[in-house]
Amino acid sequence: MTFIEKLNERYASKAMNGQVVPQEKINNILEAIRLTPTSRGLQAFEVLVITNQKLKEQIQKSAWNQRQVSECSHLLVFAAWDNYTEKRIKTVFDRVNKVRDIKDADWEAYHSRMLEFYGDKTPEENFQHACKQTYIALMSAMTQAMYDGVDNVPMEGFSPDEVDEILGLRAKGLRSTLLLPLGYSDPKHDWNAKLKKVRVSMDEFVTFIE
Amino acid sequence: MTFIEKLNERYASKAMNGQVVPQEKINNILEAIRLTPTSRGLQAFEVLVITNQKLKEQIQKSAWNQRQVSECSHLLVFAAWDNYTEKRIKTVFDRVNKVRDIKDADWEAYHSRMLEFYGDKTPEENFQHACKQTYIALMSAMTQAMYDGVDNVPMEGFSPDEVDEILGLRAKGLRSTLLLPLGYSDPKHDWNAKLKKVRVSMDEFVTFIE
Repeated sequence: MTFIEKLNERYASKAMNGQVVPQEKINNILEAIRLTPTSRGLQAFEVLVITNQKLKEQIQKSAWNQRQVSECSHLLVFAAWDNYTEKRIKTVFDRVNKVRDIKDADWEAYHSRMLEFYGDKTPEENFQHACKQTYIALMSAMTQAMYDGVDNVPMEGFSPDEVDEILGLRAKGLRSTLLLPLGYSDPKHDWNAKLKKVRVSMDEFVTFIE
Repeated sequence: MTFIEKLNERYASKAMNGQVVPQEKINNILEAIRLTPTSRGLQAFEVLVITNQKLKEQIQKSAWNQRQVSECSHLLVFAAWDNYTEKRIKTVFDRVNKVRDIKDADWEAYHSRMLEFYGDKTPEENFQHACKQTYIALMSAMTQAMYDGVDNVPMEGFSPDEVDEILGLRAKGLRSTLLLPLGYSDPKHDWNAKLKKVRVSMDEFVTFIE
């Protein structure tokens, strides 16, 4: 099945049945996230994978009580860097140097420019930039889940402050940006499963300038 | 080839050869963007597809002179809504009503809550939210391009104000958020094509909470 056919089939699961997703499929989804292209290759976020039921229930209370948060098998929490620091950028550059073994003047100059670029911005601006990168990764996660037959529902509807508090994210220099419950739809209660997909028409959406 | 294999193979093209991408492949990429899940299904952005060479060259000057902007076959510009207005939200709800034909009290209440939710926010907050949705769509575009063998390079490095001005976006209630040149790599000059992919290790990236 093509990517477009998969996209047409996909929907946001509104109720899940608690069935456990095999670890191999979770690992595939995490690998797709890890391989996602991000700005300057910085990968400015981490992912938490929560299977602890009590913790999921606690987070659900901070997520408009959306049932999938506790009904899911694995709850992914995307947590962006709260800032681009010199140390974090250095870690990435060291990793690149190790893998590619090409340290030259251009590369060092690029490193310096990057430190300047992010150093000139406020932590909030840098966080907002890191936050956007998690949205790219979100689509990779949903795509791999589609191919592995794992239902999911992306969520912005939660209190980031409360989730940060519950998971102790701020102390790690992280801030939650997105939740992605992964599991299997409960056909009895998943009212969204059978609804027709609605999308803007191509004409209203795209402008060609030739 | 699996999605993960494709991700492993993919890279940001640093030089393109001007070869034209067939319209069918461009349409597939646009269709993947159009089908991308977005917050509340609002699809709060539009896409411009630029093949006009002079216009590409003009935009290149506002994009740190990155050569792919003019060397590409098709330049995609993602342009997010500058605000969530009552009119825009109503248009989406009318579309849903037309396709699904289910107008009931719950649905109307949801519509009201959404108007309240976005109405309480500043245009800038709403734009930032719409902007993030374009990052989800960016990954769909890159994924479809991977499957269709179309090279690409996502770009945040440009002056949104200048690109908005060049394309007259503000007058349409839009603001540019991302560029995505689509085309074919020029193997002579694409220094990134042969470099090893570098990614954070799974251990550093993911935390399991059981």
